[in-house]
Order: sequence, then C-alpha cells, then structure tokens
Amino acid sequence: MLKSLCSKTLLASAIIAFSSAAVAADKVYKLKLAETWGPNFPVFGDAVKNMVKMADEMSNGRLKIRVDSSNKHKAPFGVFDLVKSGQYDLGHTASYYYKGKVPNTLYFTTMPFGMNAPEQHAWLQYGGGQDLMNQVYAEHNLVPFPGGNTGVQMGGWFRKEINSVEDLQNLKMRIPGFAGEVLAKLGATPVNIPPGELYTALERNTIDALEWVGPSLDLRMGFHKIAPYYYMGWHEPATELMFIANKKKLEKMPEDLQAILAVAMRKAAYDMFIHSYAESAKNWQTMLQEYPNIQVKTFPAEVIKALKNANDDLLKEKAAADPMAAKIIESQQQYMKQVRAYTAISEQGYLNSTEGL
Amino acid sequence: MLKSLCSKTLLASAIIAFSSAAVAADKVYKLKLAETWGPNFPVFGDAVKNMVKMADEMSNGRLKIRVDSSNKHKAPFGVFDLVKSGQYDLGHTASYYYKGKVPNTLYFTTMPFGMNAPEQHAWLQYGGGQDLMNQVYAEHNLVPFPGGNTGVQMGGWFRKEINSVEDLQNLKMRIPGFAGEVLAKLGATPVNIPPGELYTALERNTIDALEWVGPSLDLRMGFHKIAPYYYMGWHEPATELMFIANKKKLEKMPEDLQAILAVAMRKAAYDMFIHSYAESAKNWQTMLQEYPNIQVKTFPAEVIKALKNANDDLLKEKAAADPMAAKIIESQQQYMKQVRAYTAISEQGYLNSTEGL
Repeated sequence: MLKSLCSKTLLASAIIAFSSAAVAADKVYKLKLAETWGPNFPVFGDAVKNMVKMADEMSNGRLKIRVDSSNKHKAPFGVFDLVKSGQYDLGHTASYYYKGKVPNTLYFTTMPFGMNAPEQHAWLQYGGGQDLMNQVYAEHNLVPFPGGNTGVQMGGWFRKEINSVEDLQNLKMRIPGFAGEVLAKLGATPVNIPPGELYTALERNTIDALEWVGPSLDLRMGFHKIAPYYYMGWHEPATELMFIANKKKLEKMPEDLQAILAVAMRKAAYDMFIHSYAESAKNWQTMLQEYPNIQVKTFPAEVIKALKNANDDLLKEKAAADPMAAKIIESQQQYMKQVRAYTAISEQGYLNSTEGL
Repeated sequence: MLKSLCSKTLLASAIIAFSSAAVAADKVYKLKLAETWGPNFPVFGDAVKNMVKMADEMSNGRLKIRVDSSNKHKAPFGVFDLVKSGQYDLGHTASYYYKGKVPNTLYFTTMPFGMNAPEQHAWLQYGGGQDLMNQVYAEHNLVPFPGGNTGVQMGGWFRKEINSVEDLQNLKMRIPGFAGEVLAKLGATPVNIPPGELYTALERNTIDALEWVGPSLDLRMGFHKIAPYYYMGWHEPATELMFIANKKKLEKMPEDLQAILAVAMRKAAYDMFIHSYAESAKNWQTMLQEYPNIQVKTFPAEVIKALKNANDDLLKEKAAADPMAAKIIESQQQYMKQVRAYTAISEQGYLNSTEGL
C-alpha cells in the first residue's frame, strides 16, 4: 500500500518531466496551404506536392501540410488574402496576380524584356531582389518564397503572321497582366477568357491569338492544332511562382521546422524549374511529331523594338507614381545590365557558337 | 526507508523507458566531409558550408558535419577513396576527377559540346541520368548527389588569336581532362600545371593559353592582366560538382536525417549555380572596368567544327570499348537532341531576339 502510494506520486512527476520534453519534440504541426491551381494541375501542382512530401519526411512527420486546391477554397486569385488573414498558413500562387490589390507585387514574378531564370534568381539572392520583395509582403503579414519557374514563356499561338507593328492594330489576343497593357499601347486589344473557353475562342476567331505558358502546359490545351504560328517569348522570360507564409504563424513554429519549411519551399521551386524544362522538351517533341508544320517565329525586330519602347514608357509611368516601384525597377534594370553582359559571353555565346553542329 | 527503496527501483525503470525514447530522437550524428578544395575556396567551398548549415538547422543540431579541406586530408583528388573506404562519410568533389580510376565517372560532370545546366539537370532527373550515375557509383559503396554547377565555363585566356585549325598546332594550353584529349587530337599540347604556377607560366610564355572556370573564379587569378583574348566556352558547358556519401553509413542513419541530408545537398547544389552566376556577373563587370580592352572571342566556325569532330571520334572510341559507356553516351545524346530543340525556341530565342535593346 505504501509502496504503491509513494511510487504513484513520484512516477507521475517523472513521467510528466520526461513526456513534456518528448511532446515538444514530437508535436505535430498541421498547416493548411491554399493553391491557386485546380486539383492535379501539372507541374505547378506537382511543385506543391513535392514541397509537402519533403517537409513531411525531413520533419519525421511533425509537419503535416494539407493542400486545398481552388475548387475547395473557391478563390484562385484570393490566395494572398486567405494567407494574410490566417485562414490558411501557406499559399502557392504567383505574385503578379495581386497587382490590382498591392501594385508593387507586380515586379516579383517576371517582367517583359526582363531577366531569364538564372539571372532573376541571382537578382533575388545576390542583387537585393528578395529584400525588396520581403518589404512589399511584410506590410501584409506575409513572407514570400520562390515557388518555381516556368523558364521563358512562349510568345503565344497566332492564327496569322505578325510582320509589322500595323499587324498588332486591333489584334484580339488573350494576354493578361502587364504584357497586355504593353500590347494595348500599340493598338492591340488584350482580352481575358477563362482557360476552358480558350480553344473554342481561338478556333472560332473570337480571338486572333493567345499566350499560355510553353510546351509544358500548352500541349494538353491543343492550340497547336488550330494555330500554325508559335511565336517566341518576350513578355514572361522567367515566370517564378511563389510560396507565401503567414508571418505570425511561421514565426510561432520551432526554429528547426521553420528551417525545414523554408528549405523545402526553395528546393521545390528549383525542382519545378527543371521539371518544367523537362516537360517542355518532351512535349515540344510530341507537338512537332503530331504537327510537323508548326512554324516557330520571332517577331520582326521592328515589332520587338516597339514593344520594348511601350514597355519602357509604362515602367516610367509606374516609377514616377510610386517611390517603392521606382526603387524596384531601378534595382532590376541595374542588375540586369550587369548579369546579361555575363549571360552574353557564357550561356548565349555557347548556344550560338555551337548551334547546328 | 521503504518509500525511498520502492521509488528508486520504479523511478529508474520509468526514467530508462522515457530517456531511451528521448535519446533516439536527440542522438547527434557526427559526420566528416572531405572536400577537394583548399580552405575558404570561394563558391565551391561556400556550397559545402551552405549545406552543413542547412543540415544543422533542419535537424535541430542532430546532424553535425565537420568539413576537412584538402590541406587537412592531403588528397584533393582522392576524395572518392576517402569516402568509399569509410574514412570520411561524405565528400565534395567532381565526378570527372576519377576517370583514371573508374572511367565511367567521366560523364557526370559535363561534356564538351554537351548540355547546359538546366538541360543537364533535366537529363539527370527526368532523362535517366541520375540512375546511370547511381549505378556507376553503387559498385563502390557510394551514393552521388548534385554538388553545384558553374554554368558554361569560359574557353580560356589566350595570348594570341586562334583564327584557324592550324593555330592549334603545338599550342601549349593548360586544359586538363577529356577536353585536353580533344585538343590533342588536333595537334595541340595540353599540359597540366598546379594552380599556383599558372599565372607565371602564362606570363612567361611557358604556355600559350589556359582555361580555368569563368569570371567567378578567374578574377582573382589575374589572367586578364596578361592575356588579351577571352574565348567563349565549348568544353565544359555545365560543370556540376558532386556530393558523395558512403552508402552503408548513409543507410544506417534515421530516415528523417537521410532526407534532411539529401535535400540539403541538392539545395546547396542549386544555390551554388546561382551563386556562381552572380559572382561571374559581378566579376565580369570588374574585369571590364579594370581592363576595358579584354577581347571576347568565339572560335571560328571551322575550329569549332574540328573540335566537335574530334570530340565525336573520342566518344565513339569510348562507346566501342565499354557497354556502360555506350549506354551513358547514347542516353546523353538522345536527351540533348530533345532538350536543345526546346532551348532553341525558349532561352536562346529570347536572348537572341531581344539582344541589344
């Protein structure tokens, strides 16, 4: 009787002491992530799955992330608010979708005539880009991370050739965002049409052209069957998606789990660039086998120049209207000048001098 | 008395039960890594430090990795054996350094006229490359991981111009490895000279030319002060370093730490590509400011073609001599054909069509 009494008390204390340590190390953190994409969206959605799996494995199951696709949370372009408000802990989306709400989010996805993927990564990590991005998001209780790059997006599928700036007059093209504004400056009519209706719109000449992504995602849309001209890109040379985290929630987590989450997001982003590259290579081969008459085109130099001038004018307007925009644009342009000079003697020089061997 | 007796026994059992669980979760794994590089070697050595830091933070201090530079282990090109034998758990080196010992390690760093960095990453991850590499290393109780890419290496610093294939005759050039063999086929004399003696050798015309890496690491070597011609690259378009792990030791670790280690190595590798890119961009600007007369050159098309033919002949010889070499070469060539067709319409097309704007 005495024995059982004494032991109960002491054992209880001992058990409490040891198990509270065990609980701290074993506590499972359940996070919710809202993605802009629908369920099983290729490449983009795969990047999220890759991140969730790495975080789970590295944390020995202490980080469990539930992913809700847009059909669940119903706000594909509301991920920013869902995470800002704390309704979700994490998001996977693209920064430039929120330019209507927070104008300076525009600059952190890709810019027409801007840096390509390695150049943009270098700017973010070594040219001050990530700090500027963090500042823009910190005001909204958000921490942004890279989310995966598509590489250079194609200029789009056209039903007729573009031989001059005049050919852009009244051209009805599905091209959203800033690039649409650039085209509008030259007399084109940018329109936005839901993805599910794009094929029919192009087929029935409701629109003359559209841009989507590149072979990685264009193949299953089928545009190559109805538009013979595939133009090379100018408007999205390095589309980087974004993971975002609710800042307060992130900072409440143990430091090791914060580190695991940050590394998992950044690695998933890099992995997606390679996944997208590989899918594009494979799908481009398939397209050419199915439709060997696809004509790959570059816009004439005169058109490229006019687009570039329109782009520069728009950037000047934005810089004049907002000091932070001016700072970001200046940082990008200065860095690009430096980094492109190196790209010219390395990647570009190599590709050009060994072409056709 | 009774109380203290009873409690001692029971408490001891309780403490053992709880603390063994705590020990399993908290056990610190101390690993040793041998790197090919000397202490504080820029970019390459930074990739190792980055990996070690990520592994420490993500494991909450359970993974402690000691890094020994070559001045400690005295075997810069013996890292393969140091890790194979278990003297070290991990290594950071380059696969092609071991072609004398294990010929098929040659193919997993970079190949003349081969894939650039994103293309090669795509081959490794989606084109079967990593599986082939794993097979080559599994025979030696080693698991290879990506270790960081330099991007396209420059063709080198030349004291005189190369205008024809004849100019390669008796050209004394520091260019090690497979590319040296290619040049030898065209009558050049590849030589190997320790890094510390390269500057003087070039200055005193002991050699006519040398290749090192690119602006990221060339700047501090000072070659731009004594050789006016900087040729664009052909021989190492995507030099990927390598982390290697002792297979038996790796597999004995808990699964979460294995995952942490693998992700830390892969992310450090990607990060190094960007670090190298940023350093090259910065250093190239510095070089041009200090020596505005550096002349960037491409080899004439005739020279490039001759080098390519010599390269093809050497690959045919290697494929004929070894079925596994044949398999790897075939896999690379097939994949490159597919992926380069996409690069041409995306990255290359973008860079070319927007050049000089």
